[in-house]
Amino acid sequence: MDFSRFQPVMDEVDSTIESVLEGKPENLYTASSHIITAGGKRIRPLLCILACRAVGGSDRDALSTAAALELIHNFTLIHDDIMDDDDLRRGKKSVHRVYGHATAILAGDLLFSKAFELCDNRTTKILAKASARICEGQEMDMSFEGRVDVTEQEYIEMIDGKTAVLLEAAVRAGAVLGNGSEDEVKNLASFGLNVGLAFQIKDDLLGVTADEEKLGKPVGSDVIKGKKNLPVIKALELLGGNKRERLTDILSKKDNTYVEVRAAVSLIEKSGSMNYCRERMDYYAKKAGDSLMKLRESEARDALSELSCFITERDL
Amino acid sequence: MDFSRFQPVMDEVDSTIESVLEGKPENLYTASSHIITAGGKRIRPLLCILACRAVGGSDRDALSTAAALELIHNFTLIHDDIMDDDDLRRGKKSVHRVYGHATAILAGDLLFSKAFELCDNRTTKILAKASARICEGQEMDMSFEGRVDVTEQEYIEMIDGKTAVLLEAAVRAGAVLGNGSEDEVKNLASFGLNVGLAFQIKDDLLGVTADEEKLGKPVGSDVIKGKKNLPVIKALELLGGNKRERLTDILSKKDNTYVEVRAAVSLIEKSGSMNYCRERMDYYAKKAGDSLMKLRESEARDALSELSCFITERDL
Repeated sequence: MDFSRFQPVMDEVDSTIESVLEGKPENLYTASSHIITAGGKRIRPLLCILACRAVGGSDRDALSTAAALELIHNFTLIHDDIMDDDDLRRGKKSVHRVYGHATAILAGDLLFSKAFELCDNRTTKILAKASARICEGQEMDMSFEGRVDVTEQEYIEMIDGKTAVLLEAAVRAGAVLGNGSEDEVKNLASFGLNVGLAFQIKDDLLGVTADEEKLGKPVGSDVIKGKKNLPVIKALELLGGNKRERLTDILSKKDNTYVEVRAAVSLIEKSGSMNYCRERMDYYAKKAGDSLMKLRESEARDALSELSCFITERDL
Repeated sequence: MDFSRFQPVMDEVDSTIESVLEGKPENLYTASSHIITAGGKRIRPLLCILACRAVGGSDRDALSTAAALELIHNFTLIHDDIMDDDDLRRGKKSVHRVYGHATAILAGDLLFSKAFELCDNRTTKILAKASARICEGQEMDMSFEGRVDVTEQEYIEMIDGKTAVLLEAAVRAGAVLGNGSEDEVKNLASFGLNVGLAFQIKDDLLGVTADEEKLGKPVGSDVIKGKKNLPVIKALELLGGNKRERLTDILSKKDNTYVEVRAAVSLIEKSGSMNYCRERMDYYAKKAGDSLMKLRESEARDALSELSCFITERDL
């Protein structure tokens, strides 16, 4: 997908973000800026702005909330990295690895505060509700680590919170800010939620197959931590006998060797689970597309459709 | 101070808080409720409601924001306890000691989210700005631990963020919700800020002198962690030669013995620092009272005045 035509408005989003990330103590503000300035695809701000456009609103209406969404996303990344003890993010050391746990907790809290300082009052409740659901999703994700019997339904509930609700909130907020009709808000929200589910399944697939350099984190890192992503859940269901036992052993063990992680990845790949996951991803992407097509034709609608394809076809 | 006449409205605040603390995963919600249901003086909600009354508003206007303020306060307590590695809070084990670091981080994040779900839209920016300043104050507080040259001015800037701004936000929000005039909002905010500074200095004094059972945490815990509270800062200034060196040594050392902590407390007490701190506390309490007296006479104003006296005279 060629994002370049959105560069001007995304630059405005970035300026808005930067404007709230200047302050003292300097150590705290540089910690808060650490990963947000290191890149990121700015998918949530873009979704918000395109949704606003799609219902006839102007970028100006959505700008501050678009920036707030990216702040919330980065707040969750910083705290998730602490909780999951991840060393890398966007190819850089994670915030707590550079600044220590205490300042990293605060750096996340600061981004969260700034998001609510920034966002349009009409979207406060949308963002706050999504944030609460993200916490619920992350708690579920962690609680799955000690289990090998997680169902696909539980998984969907978990990624609904962990990932999809913020994408839903992004388009819902954009639609509200552009004064969309009730139907437009509903259809865009449904688009966002289903894109979000497809997005997370894609992320899980990449976590098994993508190469380390592109991904910016080690291949099989979910396996190492015993995370129950969909490829793992489905592989446990599809594999029989010894193979299932072997995979269960590796997932339950701490401190797996490189060879063991590769063995687990190989078992997942050979189980047929990856194809199943791709089908589920396509299912949610199609649902997203169907909701989108209920909107009137517009350049913004086309761009949202493109963005949805990009999400399911990306290789990082 | 006899709080009993406020019991009915404080019960309503507690019901409002409880209503947002029911949900799943249960583990996360019980972690979020752990210290908020263990007591606490509910000073911030009470300040908010009394400020609202003082400008002629009704309790109903302030209720949801009053509850949100208590959620924000408890969010900061949970995260502060992780950062400071405190074992006890309100006489109970701290959240991270019971639920682990990861769930404790999330429990704080959830309270923070719920606060913005709950608060009146007219007060979102007040609460968000205060939250950002709390992060700044906490970062300063931590950065002081490695220093012995912290000035009183730096200390005031730190407690302004860490403590006073949320009390200021509480009365400011109450005044806004009660449709107070610009002058009323300004005077109440000034009252809140100065009460907040007095409150924190009182807290510091209690940290040196109060008995462990009442306080719910070990005496001298600030000394143990090398915290630079006002009694410590002023003692370092007032003590000469060997005594100053001895105090500096203890503050800089990790893993002090009980005897060393008692020695430090004794040095602080003998330095004359405690009297100085009481004078500073009275100074801010008087400034608070002066701002309050600019408001028209009312029962609520009298209650705020009483609350201010309670804060400086309490023994826990």
